[in-house]
Amino acid sequence: MEEIIRAIAQKTDSKIVLVVLDGLGDLPVEGKTPLEAARTPTLDELAGNSALGLLDPIARGITPGSGPGHLGLFGYDPLQYEVGRGVLEALGIGLDLEPEDVAVRGNFATVDENGVLTDRRAGRLPTDENKRICAKLQRQIRKIEDVSVQIEPVMDHRFALVLRGPGLGSGVADTDPQKTGLKPLPVTAVAQDRGSRKTARIAERFVFQAMAVLKDEVKANAVLLRGFGKLPKIPKLQELYKLTPAVIAGYPMYRGLARLIGMEILPLELGDERLEEKMRLLREHWERFDFFFIHIKRTDSAGEDGNFSRKVELIEEFDAHLPEILALEPDVLAITADHSTPVPLRSHSWHPVPLLLHSRYIWPGGSDQRFTERACRRGGLGRFRAVELMPELLAHALKLQKFGA
Amino acid sequence: MEEIIRAIAQKTDSKIVLVVLDGLGDLPVEGKTPLEAARTPTLDELAGNSALGLLDPIARGITPGSGPGHLGLFGYDPLQYEVGRGVLEALGIGLDLEPEDVAVRGNFATVDENGVLTDRRAGRLPTDENKRICAKLQRQIRKIEDVSVQIEPVMDHRFALVLRGPGLGSGVADTDPQKTGLKPLPVTAVAQDRGSRKTARIAERFVFQAMAVLKDEVKANAVLLRGFGKLPKIPKLQELYKLTPAVIAGYPMYRGLARLIGMEILPLELGDERLEEKMRLLREHWERFDFFFIHIKRTDSAGEDGNFSRKVELIEEFDAHLPEILALEPDVLAITADHSTPVPLRSHSWHPVPLLLHSRYIWPGGSDQRFTERACRRGGLGRFRAVELMPELLAHALKLQKFGA
Repeated sequence: MEEIIRAIAQKTDSKIVLVVLDGLGDLPVEGKTPLEAARTPTLDELAGNSALGLLDPIARGITPGSGPGHLGLFGYDPLQYEVGRGVLEALGIGLDLEPEDVAVRGNFATVDENGVLTDRRAGRLPTDENKRICAKLQRQIRKIEDVSVQIEPVMDHRFALVLRGPGLGSGVADTDPQKTGLKPLPVTAVAQDRGSRKTARIAERFVFQAMAVLKDEVKANAVLLRGFGKLPKIPKLQELYKLTPAVIAGYPMYRGLARLIGMEILPLELGDERLEEKMRLLREHWERFDFFFIHIKRTDSAGEDGNFSRKVELIEEFDAHLPEILALEPDVLAITADHSTPVPLRSHSWHPVPLLLHSRYIWPGGSDQRFTERACRRGGLGRFRAVELMPELLAHALKLQKFGA
Repeated sequence: MEEIIRAIAQKTDSKIVLVVLDGLGDLPVEGKTPLEAARTPTLDELAGNSALGLLDPIARGITPGSGPGHLGLFGYDPLQYEVGRGVLEALGIGLDLEPEDVAVRGNFATVDENGVLTDRRAGRLPTDENKRICAKLQRQIRKIEDVSVQIEPVMDHRFALVLRGPGLGSGVADTDPQKTGLKPLPVTAVAQDRGSRKTARIAERFVFQAMAVLKDEVKANAVLLRGFGKLPKIPKLQELYKLTPAVIAGYPMYRGLARLIGMEILPLELGDERLEEKMRLLREHWERFDFFFIHIKRTDSAGEDGNFSRKVELIEEFDAHLPEILALEPDVLAITADHSTPVPLRSHSWHPVPLLLHSRYIWPGGSDQRFTERACRRGGLGRFRAVELMPELLAHALKLQKFGA
């Protein structure tokens, strides 16, 4: 399919907006899902003039992580493309990666006098503290053997670590034991190539040196390393679809993923989730791009917190800003999610996600159709894999030529 | 997908019950299918709190045999895995097969003085007669060339034949011409390897010797051989899904298939189709397993007999026993079929089969939803291939971890 789409995609003036309300899909609580409980006059009206459907982010029964959940939405089969979390974090904060760099996601953590983890997030370190500590580390640690070491703050307790030097591999396991009461794991190569063993050795020395530098810190006196990875070979949206795409996202990992596949990151402060800012950016940059990915994080967080009424509020808040998108009259507007985060489960889930597709060229559902999981189940688009969404969006924007004579 | 599921499956305490009402799916007769005509108060109530859907056992338009129909339900793509019927029969009556054994399904039959078939089932020989005749054959035939020959009664007119010796192949055609008035076919190798030619030669000598031993029998004076096969390479449910699975089935072939993929056969008399016995076994062994496959044969037989009212009765009988399953509070309960056996067709068919999935984590269909083919067509699970059912069941039992970061 990728080859076919590549061959028939054409550049046009039409504009596509894809809004991802992270973790939007849910289950009923006392008979209603958050989408059903929310008052959403604008979404309701839009739904009547739109086609609805359900997307399986990866495949039936599979609960996606955030990376795979998004890859599918942009037409990359998450069963085929794998992207390390370290790469996404590094790209997301604007670092430039060389093909041979190894990027790692780091967490500052707290250990007791025996080296046992007491807090895997160092009390969710404030970002300013994080910046101070990263600067301190970077001053002390610049090179290990022939490998240069870059340490950059991300948000809260998270930092990005980039190793640059000859012959590094990325087959290295996480050191985070995933619970407190245990010691951080030693850095271990899981792949048997010489490069991965070298990376493990350098990273282990980094951890050791970092602990020495941080020994007087009250909270951030240890580091955990996760998601070792290199830039994957992945075609860009420009090549695949002849798009000029932009991302409006506050969280580093979504910005990183978007950048990896060729999107320009519109200038938003890291962590800024204000919809008015996102809408302002959309308006300001409307002329320059033909594909906008707007990421909204907080719906997922509300689901993870099991906070039903908060999720309802956030949906209503989105509804209040939706007229600003509609005022720009995109040729195609899709509203969906990267996965469900149902309040009863307080975690990502395997459930298919609701999809709304608005364009001139659809079978509209009718004025009694709302944008809810149940309505999407009956929707005209049916249920399909997220990886098939991009062809639908491009087609509805008249960006795909006829296949075959 | 198999690799992914294998990587993310986790052992938990949650319990899954999969009920297969063999051949359940049907077509309307005078406006109603058997499921629609049956009075099923418990199923009706359950359906309101469940998600419905349709399964294509193999693929659209393909009518499954019993083997492929079941393989799909357990997550083995029937287009990829092929299992000889002889192997299923042999395993189903408890025989242990070595990897190089060839297992064959035998029928006792009646031929006239010219060797022409007059009854392909020897008047559906009583099982006791079958036992007597198998013992008589086994006394006379123990070894042919360097191949040991094991003959074991199954049920009615059927027996299992196991050939054990060096260099046997299984590319051998059935000898059953499928209708009376013809002579049994000679045993012929369809594969060109030396092993299959050896098996054909041994089997032909077995048929010849058996005819001699049976020449004075009134009914069972000939044998027909079908389904030559070896143990296939197929991963077990334990490996794939980390399950501890059990089967409750009366018929040998379903027990054989279940055993092949790692299920423990709970102690039920061969051919025992009493639901009270099956429910008793379920209760007695509830603690020891986390996956139960309950097979119910008679719905299929009623379809094959074209007996609408009998099929309705059997559905009502199942409904009456359903509270016994519900009382155990399985985390996931699925009710479905391996294929349709519509009364108007009196045979297996290609129609998709109804599926009911009950768990805490579904979008329920609402109190006016019954478990019927028509309701399943509109159900929230949509229509999908049976091979995708296991990931759904495992996900709803929280037995699958997140995929990717």
